[in-house]
Amino acid sequence: MKRNERLVDFTNFLLNRPNRMLNLNEISKRYEVAKSSISEDLVFIKRVFEDQNIGIVETFPGSLGGVRFTPYISDEVSRDRALELADLLREENRILPGGYIYLSDILGHPSNLKKIGQIIAHEYCDKQIDVVMTIATKGIPIAQSVAEILDVPFVIVRRDPKVTEGATLNVNYMSGSSSRVENMTLSKRSLSIGQSVLIVDDFMKGAGTINGMKSLVHEFDCFLSGVAVFLEGPFKGERLVDDYKSILKVDQIDVAQRTIEVELGNIFEEK
Amino acid sequence: MKRNERLVDFTNFLLNRPNRMLNLNEISKRYEVAKSSISEDLVFIKRVFEDQNIGIVETFPGSLGGVRFTPYISDEVSRDRALELADLLREENRILPGGYIYLSDILGHPSNLKKIGQIIAHEYCDKQIDVVMTIATKGIPIAQSVAEILDVPFVIVRRDPKVTEGATLNVNYMSGSSSRVENMTLSKRSLSIGQSVLIVDDFMKGAGTINGMKSLVHEFDCFLSGVAVFLEGPFKGERLVDDYKSILKVDQIDVAQRTIEVELGNIFEEK
Repeated sequence: MKRNERLVDFTNFLLNRPNRMLNLNEISKRYEVAKSSISEDLVFIKRVFEDQNIGIVETFPGSLGGVRFTPYISDEVSRDRALELADLLREENRILPGGYIYLSDILGHPSNLKKIGQIIAHEYCDKQIDVVMTIATKGIPIAQSVAEILDVPFVIVRRDPKVTEGATLNVNYMSGSSSRVENMTLSKRSLSIGQSVLIVDDFMKGAGTINGMKSLVHEFDCFLSGVAVFLEGPFKGERLVDDYKSILKVDQIDVAQRTIEVELGNIFEEK
Repeated sequence: MKRNERLVDFTNFLLNRPNRMLNLNEISKRYEVAKSSISEDLVFIKRVFEDQNIGIVETFPGSLGGVRFTPYISDEVSRDRALELADLLREENRILPGGYIYLSDILGHPSNLKKIGQIIAHEYCDKQIDVVMTIATKGIPIAQSVAEILDVPFVIVRRDPKVTEGATLNVNYMSGSSSRVENMTLSKRSLSIGQSVLIVDDFMKGAGTINGMKSLVHEFDCFLSGVAVFLEGPFKGERLVDDYKSILKVDQIDVAQRTIEVELGNIFEEK
């Protein structure tokens, strides 16, 4: 393979192996060229990946030298993506009886999910994350999108145990908005002791569900890397969780006028 | 941007825009070079994408000329991916009380989901698909993975209506294994009349759930593009659906020996 073709293949090769340390000797074998040629290729790739907000390419010297691609977007791009998502939220016809917001179309489109995943992965890029946790149903696509960028697995908490999950660990939690006691469950084999867990969900009001997942992380003897939600809703009173990050925030829902006031969430504070 | 860097960027640009017709004039503007240079780039990209099973790059001539990247893997690669997934299924400790198979770890890892998505997208590459449909919970990651490759939205059927879904269309269906009548529901605004729908799910036994989704497709005045499941389980008697495709097939589950007999599903027949 000549340089032109190698650059195309190498670009694809890196994009498909995010956050992994790749051995330069193996790459040089793959392309049947000297390591010096691979290093030259990486100069081009590095520059483009950084300029175009694709990610960071780091090379590590030495006989066991390696290269690692970490997907990364700049603060500005992250903010732009969030503003694009905010525009979708402001569309008419999104307000349902009871003041609920219809999100399924937004969370059912791969391009939106990619943006959400990139914004969350960007926020936690300097944190250790071994696994992403969410609760069924609408959190799942978000968890999958973040997990794909970070190249880690994701686990799905359920409200009812299922026979296909094997032994489960269950916790009770207090719903933040209705003050009812509810139950959530996660397959015992989903997490190992000591893993670092990032909790994500689509929507948060009183944070009762998030709080339940936090206690699950604790009961599994795991560490909490953070909590990120797509949308933070209006809530009077004190939330059960205060160390969360939100991409967007709904300040007010006017059911009569059918309008929503959306602003950027606290991920974008002090930036 | 010089050719070397342009090739890196152009590769990423195409990979992120699967199945879309991209205007060559706009691409030539993006890179500030003549269309002839872009065409030369495409020769390299095309060759590598085909050789490396990344996809097909088609160029369309004329003043409104365009380029389209379609993710595509060969039959052999598709089969290899399925064999890798089969190895995971054969791992010990996967059999749960009652003869159920634990799948959550497989379906919670982005790299496995990508393989499943590629195999299904490969199978339906010559069919019109406007939207992917699945039922909560474990079908969701599969639907998302297929939808991402096809660059189309996915919709999630539920067993119970939720206030966050707005008006819903509900159907009753007969569970294939237990002969009970059950209910499933999909938000009214999820599908438009005349769309072509691909149904996917993680596991199929009697095909009752699949049959329910088929009747939903019908009630929405949509067309069925196909039915694909990750795993087909052993079933005695006649299935409610016979026009399905499976990636893997479990012939026998030996609960005492804790072994599963897994073989390739009917996607790979006559290939």
